[in-house]
Amino acid sequence: MDDLLESPTLALARWAVQTQWAQVPEVARLATRRSWLNWWGCALGGAADPQVDRLVSALRPLGAAGSAPLLGRSERLDLPSAALVHAFASNILDFDDTHWATAIHPAGPVASAVVAWSSQYPCSGADALLAFLLGMEVECAVGLAVSPEHYAKGWHITASCGVFGAAAAVGRLMQLDEARMVWALGHAASQASGLVASLGSSAKSLNIAHAARNGLLAAQYAQAGLSASTAVLEDRFGFGALMGEGSFALGKLPGADAHWQVEDNRFKPYPCGFLLHPTLKACLALVQAHGVLAADAVAQITLRVAPLAATRANRPQPADGMAAKLSLQHAAAIMLLEGEAGVRRFTDAAVAQSQALRAKVQVLADEGLSQQEAAVEVQLHQGALLQARHRPAPGEEHPSLDDAGLALKFHDLVAHGAPHCDADRLVEQICATEQLADLRALVGLTLS
Amino acid sequence: MDDLLESPTLALARWAVQTQWAQVPEVARLATRRSWLNWWGCALGGAADPQVDRLVSALRPLGAAGSAPLLGRSERLDLPSAALVHAFASNILDFDDTHWATAIHPAGPVASAVVAWSSQYPCSGADALLAFLLGMEVECAVGLAVSPEHYAKGWHITASCGVFGAAAAVGRLMQLDEARMVWALGHAASQASGLVASLGSSAKSLNIAHAARNGLLAAQYAQAGLSASTAVLEDRFGFGALMGEGSFALGKLPGADAHWQVEDNRFKPYPCGFLLHPTLKACLALVQAHGVLAADAVAQITLRVAPLAATRANRPQPADGMAAKLSLQHAAAIMLLEGEAGVRRFTDAAVAQSQALRAKVQVLADEGLSQQEAAVEVQLHQGALLQARHRPAPGEEHPSLDDAGLALKFHDLVAHGAPHCDADRLVEQICATEQLADLRALVGLTLS
Repeated sequence: MDDLLESPTLALARWAVQTQWAQVPEVARLATRRSWLNWWGCALGGAADPQVDRLVSALRPLGAAGSAPLLGRSERLDLPSAALVHAFASNILDFDDTHWATAIHPAGPVASAVVAWSSQYPCSGADALLAFLLGMEVECAVGLAVSPEHYAKGWHITASCGVFGAAAAVGRLMQLDEARMVWALGHAASQASGLVASLGSSAKSLNIAHAARNGLLAAQYAQAGLSASTAVLEDRFGFGALMGEGSFALGKLPGADAHWQVEDNRFKPYPCGFLLHPTLKACLALVQAHGVLAADAVAQITLRVAPLAATRANRPQPADGMAAKLSLQHAAAIMLLEGEAGVRRFTDAAVAQSQALRAKVQVLADEGLSQQEAAVEVQLHQGALLQARHRPAPGEEHPSLDDAGLALKFHDLVAHGAPHCDADRLVEQICATEQLADLRALVGLTLS
Repeated sequence: MDDLLESPTLALARWAVQTQWAQVPEVARLATRRSWLNWWGCALGGAADPQVDRLVSALRPLGAAGSAPLLGRSERLDLPSAALVHAFASNILDFDDTHWATAIHPAGPVASAVVAWSSQYPCSGADALLAFLLGMEVECAVGLAVSPEHYAKGWHITASCGVFGAAAAVGRLMQLDEARMVWALGHAASQASGLVASLGSSAKSLNIAHAARNGLLAAQYAQAGLSASTAVLEDRFGFGALMGEGSFALGKLPGADAHWQVEDNRFKPYPCGFLLHPTLKACLALVQAHGVLAADAVAQITLRVAPLAATRANRPQPADGMAAKLSLQHAAAIMLLEGEAGVRRFTDAAVAQSQALRAKVQVLADEGLSQQEAAVEVQLHQGALLQARHRPAPGEEHPSLDDAGLALKFHDLVAHGAPHCDADRLVEQICATEQLADLRALVGLTLS
C-alpha cells in the first residue's frame, strides 16, 4: 500500500508483472472472454472498410513490410504497423466496447498489440488472454486516476490511456521484469497523445491505432535496454502533472476488492452514436408489437427524445452512412423498415433506402425524457396510431449485450467486413482461446 | 491577417504550401545552411552510439525492413523507422542546435524526416533545403505561440512542436495542397507528445525521434486521404486548449517583418550541459595564454561559477561520460589538459583521464557571476598563480559557433561517430546541397 501512495508507477508495473490467471475470479474471466469476442468482431467488421484500405495504402509504400498478417485481409506488414491497422479497423465502425466510468474503449489498443505481437513471437491463447486482461486493467486504472478531468478537458482517453494498456500487455508477453516494465510504462507515457478535436475525422481511429503501436514499441524499447523515467505517472513533469489534474494517485490496484474493471465493460448493440440507441429500442419495440412497416403505409412519425439528443442528432438528411450514425430520423426509419439495425443499416445504401420514410419523421425535444429514454408514435394512412416507448430498467442505463446478442453482433460484423470467413468456426475458436497452443491458429482463420 | 486571427491552422498550412525559396532573404538562407550542416554533423556523430545500436536492434526483429539507409550505418529500414533513427542519433550526444526563445532544438525532427523521405521519393537538394527551412519555421511558430508555459509545464517542446515541423516539411515535399496540409497538421497534433520526465533517460532522444517519424506519417496519412481536424491548433479540444494556455494565437506568420526564426538558431560549441560552457571558455582562455597543463604541475584549481551552476553541476566524481556532461570538475580539468572539449572529451575514457587533475578542482558559487560567466584560478606547485575569466560580450550571451567553428565541430563529430567517412568531401557536398539534383547523393557518402 505504501508503494501505491508513493510509487504508483512501480506499483502498477509490479502488478502487471506478477498477476496470475489463477488470481482472476470467474466473473472477471467471463467478462474478459466477452470483451475478447466483441473485439474480434469489431476488428473483422472493419477489416474491409475503405478507410482501412487507405491506411494500408499509406503504409505500404513507406517500406513497411514483414510477416505480421492483417486480420481479415491479405497483406502483411511489420509488427508495429499491424498493431496500428488492427486497432484502426476495430474502431472504424464505432461499434466497440465502452468502460463507462472512464469513457475508454478498453479492448482496441490492447488486443491489437497482443495479436500483432503473437504473429512474430508465438504465444498460447491463455497467455494472450491474460495479457489482454492485464493490459485493459492497467489502461482503466490510469484512466480512472485522471477521470473525469482528462477526457473532459479534451484528451482522447482511449488513446492517451490505451497506450499504457498496450505496453503492459506486450511487456507481460515478453516477461519483462519489474524494472523494465516501469520503463515500458515510461515509454508509453512519453508517447501518450490524442486530441478530442480529432473526433469526426479519420484521425479519431488513428489515435487509437497509435496507442496500440506505440504501446507495443514502448515494451520493445524497454526490453532492448532503452531507459525511461522510473516514475512517469507521478513525476512532477510526468503524466499526472501534464495530462491529469497536476498529480497522480491510484486509489487501489486493479482487481482489489475482488472487482475488475473488465466486469464493467459494455458492448454497443448498434453501430451508431449512443444518443440514437433509445430511439432504436423504442422502434424495435414497435416492430416487435406490430411488425415492420412499409414507407407508403405511413402518414407521419413523431419521435420524442431528450433535449440533448434532439440538439445533437436531429439530422433529417444525412449525407452518407457516416453521418447516418448521428441521424435520429435515419435510425427510426431504418429500424421500422427492417426490424434490426446492424452494420449494413448505416451504409450509404441504407441512407438511400431510408429516404422516403425518414422524410416523415418529426423529432421533438421532450424535457420529460432522460437520455436513456425515447418514445415513438406512427400515424398510419389507414387511421391506426402505433406507439412504443423505451425506458431502461434500473441498473441497465448503459446498453450492452448478453451472450446471444454478442454472438449475433459477431456474425453481423463478420458478414459485413470479412464475409470469406467461417463465422461459426471463428466464434467457436475465439471462445476456446484458452485452449489454443498458439494464437496464430485463430489469426489464420481470418486471412483472405 | 484575418486568417491569422481566426484560423491559425489554415494560415500556417497555407504559408507552408505557398512559400518559395525566392522569398527567403539571404541572411535566412545562410542560417538555414548552417543549421543543416550542424544537423548532419550531429547525426553522424551519434550514428555509432551504443544507444543507437540498441534502438536499431529493437526495431529490426519487429519486421521493420525497407530501403531507407541509416546515416553512417549499414542497415536499411522502412522510411518511418529511418526518420526515427536519424532523429534519435542526432540528439543522443546532446550537441544539437537551440532556438533560445522556445528551447526547441529545431533541426532534429525536421531534417530527419526530410532525409528519410528522400530515400524513397527522390528530391533535389534545393527542395530538401526549402522543406527543412519551412518545417523549422512552422515548428518554431507553434512553439512561440505556446511559450513559455508549454515547456515550463513539462512538455518536451522539441518533440511536441517538432512533429508539426516534420509534417509540414514532408507535406511540402509531397506538394500537398492547402486542405491536405491542414490535415497533416491535424495528424501531427494528434500525435504531439513528449514529457520532460523523460530527460536523463533514453526516452529523451526517443521523444524527438517520435516527432520525426510521426510528422512524416502525418503528411503521409493526409496524402492518402485520411482526414483530420481542420482547425487543430485553435479547436476548443485542440493543441492550444490542451497543451498551451487554453487557446492558440499566432502573433505573425513565419518570415514576417523579414525575420526568420532560423536566424536565431544557435549551435552548441561543446557536447555538454550549457551550465558548463562558461567554465570551458574560461579554461580555454587560460590555456590560450599559458598552454595546456600537466596534472602533476598543479597544486589547486579554484573555479567560481554562478550559484545555479554550482548547485546543478558540482559533480567531483562523474560515473561515466554521460555524467561528465554535467560535471564542472571534469569540464575544467579536461579543457586544461587538452585545450579543447569535443565529443571525445566526454567519454568514459576521458573521465578516467581527468581524474587526477579534477581531484584538485574546488567549485565555489559566486553570486557576483551571471550564468554566462565563470572564473578560474590555477595554483601551480612552482608558485605561479594563473587566472582567466569568461564574460560574454553583450548580445552574445547564447554561445554559438561561427562558420570555422561549425566546420571544426563537424570534423570532430564525423571522426567520433562515422570515421569511415571522408569528412572534407562531406562538408563540401553538404554546403553545396542546393546544387544537388538528388539528395541521395549526400546520404550515400555516409553509409558504412
